[in-house]
Amino acid sequence: MPNITKATLSRLPLYLQYIRSSVREERTSASAIARALGLGEVLVRKDLSLVCEAGRPKLGYQTKTLSSALESILGVHQSVPAIIVGAGKLGLALMGYDGFAEYGLVISAAFDCAPEKNGIRYAGKTIYPLGQLAGYCRTHDVRIGVLTVPAPAAQEVCDEMIKSGITAIWNFAPRTLEVPEHVTVQQENLALSLAHLRLSALS
Amino acid sequence: MPNITKATLSRLPLYLQYIRSSVREERTSASAIARALGLGEVLVRKDLSLVCEAGRPKLGYQTKTLSSALESILGVHQSVPAIIVGAGKLGLALMGYDGFAEYGLVISAAFDCAPEKNGIRYAGKTIYPLGQLAGYCRTHDVRIGVLTVPAPAAQEVCDEMIKSGITAIWNFAPRTLEVPEHVTVQQENLALSLAHLRLSALS
Repeated sequence: MPNITKATLSRLPLYLQYIRSSVREERTSASAIARALGLGEVLVRKDLSLVCEAGRPKLGYQTKTLSSALESILGVHQSVPAIIVGAGKLGLALMGYDGFAEYGLVISAAFDCAPEKNGIRYAGKTIYPLGQLAGYCRTHDVRIGVLTVPAPAAQEVCDEMIKSGITAIWNFAPRTLEVPEHVTVQQENLALSLAHLRLSALS
Repeated sequence: MPNITKATLSRLPLYLQYIRSSVREERTSASAIARALGLGEVLVRKDLSLVCEAGRPKLGYQTKTLSSALESILGVHQSVPAIIVGAGKLGLALMGYDGFAEYGLVISAAFDCAPEKNGIRYAGKTIYPLGQLAGYCRTHDVRIGVLTVPAPAAQEVCDEMIKSGITAIWNFAPRTLEVPEHVTVQQENLALSLAHLRLSALS
């Protein structure tokens, strides 16, 4: 995909998500998408023109054609494996969460340091001891990891994940992780959302 | 709390979270917090001086004093009830999630339109039929709701929540909600995080 910058690429999931979740209409347009997402119309128009040549003035895009083009560039139909480290309540919840598949990710296993969890199966996946992380990631060529351990253990577990070959970490632990340059961290902050929610309800 | 602007207020949960999750040190400082959170030091120093007068040049703050001051302003020790609408996998996961209590929120009940879920208890909470939402929220003075229904149903359920008196919505459905001005939506976007995660692992 020539000419597609990283910035454009990072907006494509947003477009795809909008198209998937919006009312099923046969056609959609850059201006409708821009409006719904609060982005500039020129920007969206340019992004979409790089992705899909089938847009027509006034008529916009066939929704199906555009979503196929986005899916193909994002590669969502080629499943990529990911693992979860930390099989607590949140980890278990994510093991059972359906949303991964829609974006081409498959949680293939979970890891936890608690001996009593070893070997347990949940939502069709097995929980392994943390000591098997490196071997598993190498054997299955896993590069994506979800981190759901308590905050005090997060950095240590993160280091372990990176040593095991993980290069993209979805971090649910409420603390900043220090990682080398080749590793990306996607920080999720549920507790912070909660605090803001509470503030806005009471203010 | 005079002189505390909304902008400052919105950063306080971040400070509290950092203090709670950082290594237990007796003292902390505006510069350490600013560094860890990637914020300007002057900004953090000013925010903290509004919250807690006990900071001392060079020595910073006693961690305990500062966290108590933040907790008191944020009111995290006064539990506020919240409800979940949509008792699917994610909804159930959040029913069992511990993190709410730390920010003064208590999930008191869940609601779902599936008759087979009515009356089921999970993690100590009951799942009620959606039709009982308004009555429940009025009786228990609930103003915070977590929305975990599928995207196509989200707007309709959102409208129902607002009619029931909810003014702060934590939306996990991947679509933008239209709400009146007095209602706040905190948008959570797990699928988007996933897509970015996948992109960064493969690029």
